[in-house]
Amino acid sequence: MIDKLIEQIQKLQNPTVVGLDPRLSMIPEHIKEKAFEEHGKTLAGAAAAFLAFNQEIIDATYDLIPAVKPQVAMYEMYGAAGMQAFIDTVAYAKKKGLIVIGDVKRNDIASTAQAYSDGHLGEVEIEGELIEPFGEDFITVNPYLGTESIEPYFEHMKNRDKGLFVLVKTSNAGSGEIQDLPMGSEGHPLYETVGQLIDKWGAAFRGSYGFSDIGAVVGATHPEQGARLRQLLPHVFFLVPGYGAQGGTAEDLAGCFNREGIGAIVNSSRGIIAAYQNKKYSHQFKPDEFAQASRQAVLDMKADLNRVL
Amino acid sequence: MIDKLIEQIQKLQNPTVVGLDPRLSMIPEHIKEKAFEEHGKTLAGAAAAFLAFNQEIIDATYDLIPAVKPQVAMYEMYGAAGMQAFIDTVAYAKKKGLIVIGDVKRNDIASTAQAYSDGHLGEVEIEGELIEPFGEDFITVNPYLGTESIEPYFEHMKNRDKGLFVLVKTSNAGSGEIQDLPMGSEGHPLYETVGQLIDKWGAAFRGSYGFSDIGAVVGATHPEQGARLRQLLPHVFFLVPGYGAQGGTAEDLAGCFNREGIGAIVNSSRGIIAAYQNKKYSHQFKPDEFAQASRQAVLDMKADLNRVL
Repeated sequence: MIDKLIEQIQKLQNPTVVGLDPRLSMIPEHIKEKAFEEHGKTLAGAAAAFLAFNQEIIDATYDLIPAVKPQVAMYEMYGAAGMQAFIDTVAYAKKKGLIVIGDVKRNDIASTAQAYSDGHLGEVEIEGELIEPFGEDFITVNPYLGTESIEPYFEHMKNRDKGLFVLVKTSNAGSGEIQDLPMGSEGHPLYETVGQLIDKWGAAFRGSYGFSDIGAVVGATHPEQGARLRQLLPHVFFLVPGYGAQGGTAEDLAGCFNREGIGAIVNSSRGIIAAYQNKKYSHQFKPDEFAQASRQAVLDMKADLNRVL
Repeated sequence: MIDKLIEQIQKLQNPTVVGLDPRLSMIPEHIKEKAFEEHGKTLAGAAAAFLAFNQEIIDATYDLIPAVKPQVAMYEMYGAAGMQAFIDTVAYAKKKGLIVIGDVKRNDIASTAQAYSDGHLGEVEIEGELIEPFGEDFITVNPYLGTESIEPYFEHMKNRDKGLFVLVKTSNAGSGEIQDLPMGSEGHPLYETVGQLIDKWGAAFRGSYGFSDIGAVVGATHPEQGARLRQLLPHVFFLVPGYGAQGGTAEDLAGCFNREGIGAIVNSSRGIIAAYQNKKYSHQFKPDEFAQASRQAVLDMKADLNRVL
């Protein structure tokens, strides 16, 4: 799956992933009105608004971007209806040819990780019927439980062409509290140890660009650490959150790419999906043109990233 | 919420939490037949089977146990229908007076953690309507993103009497790979640092037994570490997985309790909910008596734990 992602990035000359992390405060009134009219002021109403919003953004951007990354928490907070909107968003994006990174940050002991693996990357068997419940291409996972908690994903990675992004150095300002803790007498930070584990796990999953199907989440908000990790982990592809609304600039994340200008995909969520609410775009696009504002924000982000690559 | 949990444990003389982690292979045929007849061989069919199974187990055990701990992965793998069965299980258990620990192991950067907090412990607002999507009393969370990722839960802990269990030392055999890494020149393991952070976070949330609403997940499969953590963290209550099917014995986890015999709640999942499939109980209970087998397994576990306390 990493080869397909890199090919799409190369073809479109755009290492941008659109974070589909809707909030009700971002949804234009006309979409909310219709959803709440049909479903009431309910969880199903919120879910319907999210799906309609996402579909329009996907329609307006899919020809420019390799991938989308829905953040499951934004959907899960609206219960089962919200989860269905997440699942429907995944399906809609895939139908449009997009690669889908499910930002779920799951993990657990092996038997439980297997359930997440089957649900998100694989299939479940119900009395002989095989059903694909979620269908993402990649998911994000948490490394705290070690190799045992990652191995349950390997089968679907191999047999169904799937991938992972494992948390290494997250974009929050305080990520260093645990992730930068110095290990042993040499004092390397914990996140480097995690990065090296990812490199080891991914050795059996390297594709034709030298990158493996097990990538790392490395925040744009920590430029020095990103650059250091890029050197340390030449085979590990990075998913880079933190650009834009969280404060990371194109210059900050340039070090996450290698000399050939590959090695990372950069997420922007609010900056793209709520572009019409940003004063940079709001004079030009009305609320019912929100998706066109998102398209313009994608073009601007692409230009900004290509400036430093 | 920790006071309520401790009171229930004391009243029932039973520090057992039943892990409601159903799998289709555990569900008796008569329940599956009915569910698949009504819903087809679908995700909704699996979800209906889980809910019916859980309800019968809750009915047969609620007077003996303080709490249940549904593992969300087992439900999430069946998509939105599965999530609804999780939510319905939470509601059913609460209606029976049980404390519910949602074993969700979520976490993310603060703005996203807020979504998990609102969804699982709080309410969401939809056009002025307040809806409680999940309704657990406690959830489990992952500490890798640091203090910033825990603070979003504090408001609901304070205002809605909720609690957390943060992963410290998990029950899997390989948990030490990351969790035991020696920190700095003194070489204390990472999980101790995480434990000390939990103690700090919980200082503002201590109840009348001296324990705080922010507990720690400490596996029964690591007896020495459990005992060491109990000494190190006298104000942190432990959620102890790994008893029974995972290999932890009552003796192994005795060190997780303090001298007064409090300080921990011990989870058993398969050992209780699939007791009727275990040869210890299968001669005595037929598949349609599965819930009575679970009741007997709870009584046996209670006796086993009280033997060492």
